[in-house]
Amino acid sequence: MKIDAPDVIEEVKAAFYEYERALMEDDLNAMANLFRHAPETVRYGVGECLYGYAEIAAFRKGRGGSPQRELGKVAISTYGDRVATANAEFFRENTNVRGRQSQTWVKFDEGWKVVSAHVSLEKDVS
Amino acid sequence: MKIDAPDVIEEVKAAFYEYERALMEDDLNAMANLFRHAPETVRYGVGECLYGYAEIAAFRKGRGGSPQRELGKVAISTYGDRVATANAEFFRENTNVRGRQSQTWVKFDEGWKVVSAHVSLEKDVS
Repeated sequence: MKIDAPDVIEEVKAAFYEYERALMEDDLNAMANLFRHAPETVRYGVGECLYGYAEIAAFRKGRGGSPQRELGKVAISTYGDRVATANAEFFRENTNVRGRQSQTWVKFDEGWKVVSAHVSLEKDVS
Repeated sequence: MKIDAPDVIEEVKAAFYEYERALMEDDLNAMANLFRHAPETVRYGVGECLYGYAEIAAFRKGRGGSPQRELGKVAISTYGDRVATANAEFFRENTNVRGRQSQTWVKFDEGWKVVSAHVSLEKDVS
């Protein structure tokens, strides 16, 4: 299994940054196109646990857009040519709390889709 | 690509619950055996962002064990026979805050390994 093959990394990077653009612009159609529409898809958000694409879509519709944010460190890795993990730090406007977004991407016949996502704000446990 | 093939689900379930046992018993060797030892492996914990297996191992050694917890809902899905996502809710002792653990598992020649993990406590954003 080839890890981090450059051509696969490029595909996933394109999907990852397209998702970030869509999130910042509350482009629901583009976001919908990048998540797998299936009961298995899970998204843990900062304040919610969503199981299945129907719950995710309902949440997005009612949300009125994500808080604006800047990305920090981004770590994308690929395992073979159909699976990737994308981990990214982010900082929302007017706060210095570090956010973290983890996505698992799988390539289906119709393209790369997020099958699992987890977003949280880091907690000061020192 | 077969989703949730029963035999693959069984393999991942076994690895998932073995990890939970190891975490609760602070069995560092067993935990080490279930994470991929590579610079690409990422673990976002409640209060830390760890990149590469070396950082993860150092954190575990210095931690003195995880808080004890009970699992809530567990959602494991498999994509083909070498990739899985495991999402689980948990509740730490003496708190009713909901925790969430997401893992991406990949099957290598040496078995199933976590290549990405994200643990957080849900925030009340209501």
